[in-house]
Amino acid sequence: MLTLEQLNAATQAEFTALLDGVYEHSPWIAEQAWLARPFASLAHLKRALIETLRNAPREAQLGLIRVHPELAGKAMVTKSLTAESTNEQSKAGLTDCTPEEFARIQKLNADYNARFGFPFILAVRGPRGLGLDRHEIIATFARRLNNSPDFEFGEALRNIHRIAEIRLNDKFAVEPTLGNLVWDWHEELAKHTEPGYAERGELCVTYLTDAHRAAARELADRMRNECGFDEVGIDAVGNVVGVYYGGNEHGTDPQAKRLLTGSHYDTVRNGGKYDGRLGILVPMACVRELHRQGRRLPYGFEVVGFAEEEGQRYKATFLGSGALTGQFDNTWLDQLDANGVAMRDAMANADLHIATIPDLKRDPSRYLGFVETHIEQGPVLNDLDLPLGIVTSINGSVRYVGQITGMASHAGTTPMTMRRDAAAAAAELVLYAEKRGGAVEDLVATVGMLEVPNGSINVVPGRCRFSLDVRATTNEVRDAAAEDIRNELQAICERRGLQFTLEETMQADAAPCAPEWRMRWERAVDSLGLPVFRLPSGAGHDAMMLHRVMPQAMLFLRGLNAGISHNPLESITNDDTELCVRAFQNLLNQLATDLT
Amino acid sequence: MLTLEQLNAATQAEFTALLDGVYEHSPWIAEQAWLARPFASLAHLKRALIETLRNAPREAQLGLIRVHPELAGKAMVTKSLTAESTNEQSKAGLTDCTPEEFARIQKLNADYNARFGFPFILAVRGPRGLGLDRHEIIATFARRLNNSPDFEFGEALRNIHRIAEIRLNDKFAVEPTLGNLVWDWHEELAKHTEPGYAERGELCVTYLTDAHRAAARELADRMRNECGFDEVGIDAVGNVVGVYYGGNEHGTDPQAKRLLTGSHYDTVRNGGKYDGRLGILVPMACVRELHRQGRRLPYGFEVVGFAEEEGQRYKATFLGSGALTGQFDNTWLDQLDANGVAMRDAMANADLHIATIPDLKRDPSRYLGFVETHIEQGPVLNDLDLPLGIVTSINGSVRYVGQITGMASHAGTTPMTMRRDAAAAAAELVLYAEKRGGAVEDLVATVGMLEVPNGSINVVPGRCRFSLDVRATTNEVRDAAAEDIRNELQAICERRGLQFTLEETMQADAAPCAPEWRMRWERAVDSLGLPVFRLPSGAGHDAMMLHRVMPQAMLFLRGLNAGISHNPLESITNDDTELCVRAFQNLLNQLATDLT
Repeated sequence: MLTLEQLNAATQAEFTALLDGVYEHSPWIAEQAWLARPFASLAHLKRALIETLRNAPREAQLGLIRVHPELAGKAMVTKSLTAESTNEQSKAGLTDCTPEEFARIQKLNADYNARFGFPFILAVRGPRGLGLDRHEIIATFARRLNNSPDFEFGEALRNIHRIAEIRLNDKFAVEPTLGNLVWDWHEELAKHTEPGYAERGELCVTYLTDAHRAAARELADRMRNECGFDEVGIDAVGNVVGVYYGGNEHGTDPQAKRLLTGSHYDTVRNGGKYDGRLGILVPMACVRELHRQGRRLPYGFEVVGFAEEEGQRYKATFLGSGALTGQFDNTWLDQLDANGVAMRDAMANADLHIATIPDLKRDPSRYLGFVETHIEQGPVLNDLDLPLGIVTSINGSVRYVGQITGMASHAGTTPMTMRRDAAAAAAELVLYAEKRGGAVEDLVATVGMLEVPNGSINVVPGRCRFSLDVRATTNEVRDAAAEDIRNELQAICERRGLQFTLEETMQADAAPCAPEWRMRWERAVDSLGLPVFRLPSGAGHDAMMLHRVMPQAMLFLRGLNAGISHNPLESITNDDTELCVRAFQNLLNQLATDLT
Repeated sequence: MLTLEQLNAATQAEFTALLDGVYEHSPWIAEQAWLARPFASLAHLKRALIETLRNAPREAQLGLIRVHPELAGKAMVTKSLTAESTNEQSKAGLTDCTPEEFARIQKLNADYNARFGFPFILAVRGPRGLGLDRHEIIATFARRLNNSPDFEFGEALRNIHRIAEIRLNDKFAVEPTLGNLVWDWHEELAKHTEPGYAERGELCVTYLTDAHRAAARELADRMRNECGFDEVGIDAVGNVVGVYYGGNEHGTDPQAKRLLTGSHYDTVRNGGKYDGRLGILVPMACVRELHRQGRRLPYGFEVVGFAEEEGQRYKATFLGSGALTGQFDNTWLDQLDANGVAMRDAMANADLHIATIPDLKRDPSRYLGFVETHIEQGPVLNDLDLPLGIVTSINGSVRYVGQITGMASHAGTTPMTMRRDAAAAAAELVLYAEKRGGAVEDLVATVGMLEVPNGSINVVPGRCRFSLDVRATTNEVRDAAAEDIRNELQAICERRGLQFTLEETMQADAAPCAPEWRMRWERAVDSLGLPVFRLPSGAGHDAMMLHRVMPQAMLFLRGLNAGISHNPLESITNDDTELCVRAFQNLLNQLATDLT
């Protein structure tokens, strides 16, 4: 069993020998990472190894990828794998393949190598550290074959880092026990899903369905029985609320000022397991630890599982967190879902008392602030190989739908100089929006919908419909970009003799995180030996609602698979989750120190 | 009654006085056109006036537009219109407007003037020279209000030229009698239309429907009874074939070598009246004139109304002309239409004898060549104010459908630098195709279909589907452009890390018109006092089929409304049609001279 003390005291040669086998046939990585000693934490050591490889020339990275064995390949058959690879491949059951599975994997290996020029690498022990089964491995293999070469190159390196992380955990004989706990809670929670989705193995938990109510009960039960919250209840809109008492005097004062945290437990249709839920389960794990240690904080800690954020069953996005800020809109109650069920009736059926909704509004003077942890739902942390990132601002956004009108004409008989091509004008707009969005840091501009209605192969497009979505960390940056894009659209249409419409459909203010609270997250991440990396949130979160009444700050956890979300491929690792819990614990401790 | 002799002998002042009122309050146009004397024909005079205005500064053109009275405007009410305008506006029934109609027109006048800065001008006596009714005028007014300013500026001038043409005809006391005849024949023929279309006033004549068979009978009857063809019949695929005997010896030799001409009488759904039919009716008018004069040509003249060109009911485009070149494909017979009727059964029902189709194949050695007149179906002649144009080549074309695949990701959370935006790549392709198409004369490249499937406002497009259509006067120019565009697509996708597919769906060879025959059309146009203007045909025509077995050449007639076709707005004038008949007569005479 290896320790940090050993490693920090080791010579370069000893260090390299101690880390032998962490990166396949590549002692040079440990050799160079040695220069970054001493290591404050295992996370710090892992980061140093990652940075060594990130800074290496591409040929060295490619060399590392290429020394890896093929999955269930010749090396496995001839038993010439490294001990580590043998262990991993046999744990994944690859040594027990049927002849058909084996043939399928050989075909995939050949196709993959032909396409990318390097072997397929997958951390077969999976994101939780447990083994993927052969079926999952083959499905992932087939899916990744469709990636672009440069993305897949990065994916190979990311899997190598993950393999190294698991091998290091083995060497250090450490387990991310809190990460595993939260991971397992996510799995349990994801067992509740709606009929029609359950059969396909898909997750769908929309507001006040049976699956949704079962999820709420599971959260409440776990808070009460497993975590030791002092108060647990399901409120009048379905939020699951747990309070762990604290206070300066005796530590169990229900009236003590509170830190508020939470996120949502509803999901989109066929969504992921972590979106929202992570922000409930991580602080629950923190309370479980506090309770296990018999420890009280000098403030109350209130954890809310918000019942509704996604706006899937009813058009009432942020219903759960909005109820806490007095934003519940009574006209929502008459909305019908796809089956014609009014929200009012769905709430009555769930034994929710509509009349008491106004009581849910929190008095901000009783709260210290709001923090939220969430998966990033974007590719940034994954690309940078960073488990955690500190949110600077929840971006402000504005959305438009528009149409350009030119003149439909015969594609054969209309000379290029006489066209009024609506799609060509839209193409200019798309490229301008892309350029304008890229010109300012943390600004994004997207044409997500683009269509020539009833377009024909032999007709110059007379119309083109499009959407535009602009987001930035401040309203000013957002509005300046939106105005420039509108002006460019006008200039394009004037130059081409076309007309256009552009209709704003949505606008949301930016919610910059409170500097004091953001710095607490920064210190928490730094305390883990990880780099402090700041990024905006491009998606909306419950913190946006609480922002209206109290300071808020968010922490992001890396999402695998390029950060995909609202998709079953949404994924995180147990090791990352462990770091997230530890960061939260650190923030709780900082706040305790600040208040005493 | 004015004559060309008078005008050619007049001084500039006399000339200007003689043409007073042709262009509203603008004697300067006649004054300058005088410099182009002597005039060989009325068409030549009209062209000189048009060219004067075309060469005038934009301010002078705008001045001319602005001196026109508003339609049913104040000047009409106060009786301060010119005599010509009073005549035109009262013939159109505008002086009899109801108060509601009058109010509607005043509103349109105000909106139009506000948008364009000049009054709405419409040749109210219509394309045939007869009056438009108030309903048609108001509909046209409302439609033109949506045009772009520069197009509408041109449309105003074109209407002014048309008004001047009609006023000149009045001054010369000439009527385009052959043009009127052919015009009226089109109107009669257009009365046959399919159920479901008839009720909406739409034209739809697809292969072997009752409307189609009635149109064929009408053509055959007219050939037989009104034009004096010697042989008239409906062949085994439904083509209407009329032969006017000629020959060197006695002028009525059925075996004499023939000139072949014709076009199709089927239409697209909700199509125009002139597409195809003009190419049957113009030579029919020529035969009618020959027969009326008791004149025989030193060659036979065979006019064919092809039964099928549009491929609407069955996927068997060019079925009619193809039968003459032996291209009839027997597998077509089993095709079903939208109602499940097999072509075989439709033919049996129309008393067509499938077994004799092979006999329709013509022996090229018995033919001198093939000529075809057709509306342009494009905007070129209309924009140049030219009634006729000589076709250089029926363009070769190639069509593709393609898809770009990137990675769908969250529009808020995916930084601009990390996107794999399929629509942005497609936008680059659209603009490259436009640029490449515009770089070579008579080359066109079009992306007519463009779509982000299931695009969302907040998702970076992961896929984009598109079509590509490339046409050029030669296969070489077409293929070079197609290759460049494909290479650019590949470069775009490589640069952006995307993948693409591009599938060729159609390819047609270019059919350059035979120089000897093209020159006959050029001489014919020149003989009318009109400029010789050459252009390619961007659309396919029956001449493409005949091209395989004999020399061919085509003459285009200007289409109004920016040359729109396959649309009820497809339109021509009686004066243009007159010139088309005269050009055809000239070509017949040239050929007669050449053969004697």
